[in-house]
Amino acid sequence: MLTFVGLGLYDERDITLKGLEAIRSAEFVYLEEYTSRLGGCNREKLEGVFGRKVLPATRTDIENDPEEILRRAASSDVVLLTGGDPMSATTHIDLRLRAHDRGIKTRIIHAPSIFTAVAGITGLSSYKFGKSATISYPWGERGVISEVPYDTIKINRAHGLHTLLLLDISNGRCMRIHEALKILSMLEEKRDEGVVDNLLFVGVARAGSEDMTVKAGDLETLMHFDFGPPLHVLVAVGELHFIEHEALVKFAGLKGDL
Amino acid sequence: MLTFVGLGLYDERDITLKGLEAIRSAEFVYLEEYTSRLGGCNREKLEGVFGRKVLPATRTDIENDPEEILRRAASSDVVLLTGGDPMSATTHIDLRLRAHDRGIKTRIIHAPSIFTAVAGITGLSSYKFGKSATISYPWGERGVISEVPYDTIKINRAHGLHTLLLLDISNGRCMRIHEALKILSMLEEKRDEGVVDNLLFVGVARAGSEDMTVKAGDLETLMHFDFGPPLHVLVAVGELHFIEHEALVKFAGLKGDL
Repeated sequence: MLTFVGLGLYDERDITLKGLEAIRSAEFVYLEEYTSRLGGCNREKLEGVFGRKVLPATRTDIENDPEEILRRAASSDVVLLTGGDPMSATTHIDLRLRAHDRGIKTRIIHAPSIFTAVAGITGLSSYKFGKSATISYPWGERGVISEVPYDTIKINRAHGLHTLLLLDISNGRCMRIHEALKILSMLEEKRDEGVVDNLLFVGVARAGSEDMTVKAGDLETLMHFDFGPPLHVLVAVGELHFIEHEALVKFAGLKGDL
Repeated sequence: MLTFVGLGLYDERDITLKGLEAIRSAEFVYLEEYTSRLGGCNREKLEGVFGRKVLPATRTDIENDPEEILRRAASSDVVLLTGGDPMSATTHIDLRLRAHDRGIKTRIIHAPSIFTAVAGITGLSSYKFGKSATISYPWGERGVISEVPYDTIKINRAHGLHTLLLLDISNGRCMRIHEALKILSMLEEKRDEGVVDNLLFVGVARAGSEDMTVKAGDLETLMHFDFGPPLHVLVAVGELHFIEHEALVKFAGLKGDL
């Protein structure tokens, strides 16, 4: 059996009791850290807390050559750990399909995810979030920037909806809020459709931790705000209900007159 | 301090280690069951597992007269338990704001939520879900039906996006998938905009449990499918990537030729 177990938001204590049981009864435990990562602990710490060997799984191990994982899962209980809720990153569905095709039973043990938690953290209504998007680092020699986040904000904004913007993890580098805002500014310069103009943002750093930072403001304000270490996410705010506005003032330091 | 603790999807083992610690160190533990409820356990079972008295909190206790909870939270550690991830239901933000206004510290301990888990369960991409909506029971003498779900599906569908439809809990009655589909049909009859025509749905019953049921098909198929006991949710499917289609065929019994 192949069990996808989510580690939740921040550290080793964000896993569920079901997840912990699955780890403790598994013969092989893998951890991938390329779709998400825990800000509050690493593989070594997980090994100590769980009392189990935790094997690293790279993107290649999972996407290109999952032979070892699948071979083991065919005759043993294998757990694949991921930050957040498993399968939120689209990459793991392929592994689940491959396992299914070989007759290997699969199971998902869910965990807290920023996709849902961001509503509680910011005080924004979960029913008013539209489609999410990821802001990626520019790629290739010409530094191409994906315009998906720009289009996503544009559509959501047209319907008064908020947009959760996840920030890229690339080669172990976790994008910060000021980098993400810079990229949005560059997209605005290119597209010139006013999508980012007069837009209110909420930045969240280290969601789920004791020293989480939440700050609302315009692009200029957040660009110069010190959010501290990653992980960071950003919300492009749509129309605000007055309760949401009150929550941003009280829990995210929004200036009341905005 | 007032700590909002999520219980997750199904039973007492869907809570995180952090949530469990918060319960064990609290002086008063309340459970509300009107925004969500655990299909796999009740208040008495939670008391047994957590080794703590769990006090019931009604909608009135939280929305109209939260005096007892707030008074206790001013001088003690109080935990409010909710199914899913706390604050996904908009009702609790008001309690958090009231606590803040009295100088009471608040904290959220996140948990698995159907808002995110539904992507992993169905194999649909979490990036392709638009705004969510709740299908409510008709209310009043004239049986008025909220048209919000219809409009939400309409907008999402226009952008190729999936829609998570949460089903009403009212007076302890949990809406089933066939009831929800009936309501959507009635809305289609009234609005006549073809939003529900040729629409593909995925129904999920008892998410997070060992006997979870996931079934994809058209309205007619799901209307007559036996999903068993609640909780139920429904997804109105948008445009399918071929990997999502494959996942629905393999994990949700979709007929391959749809």
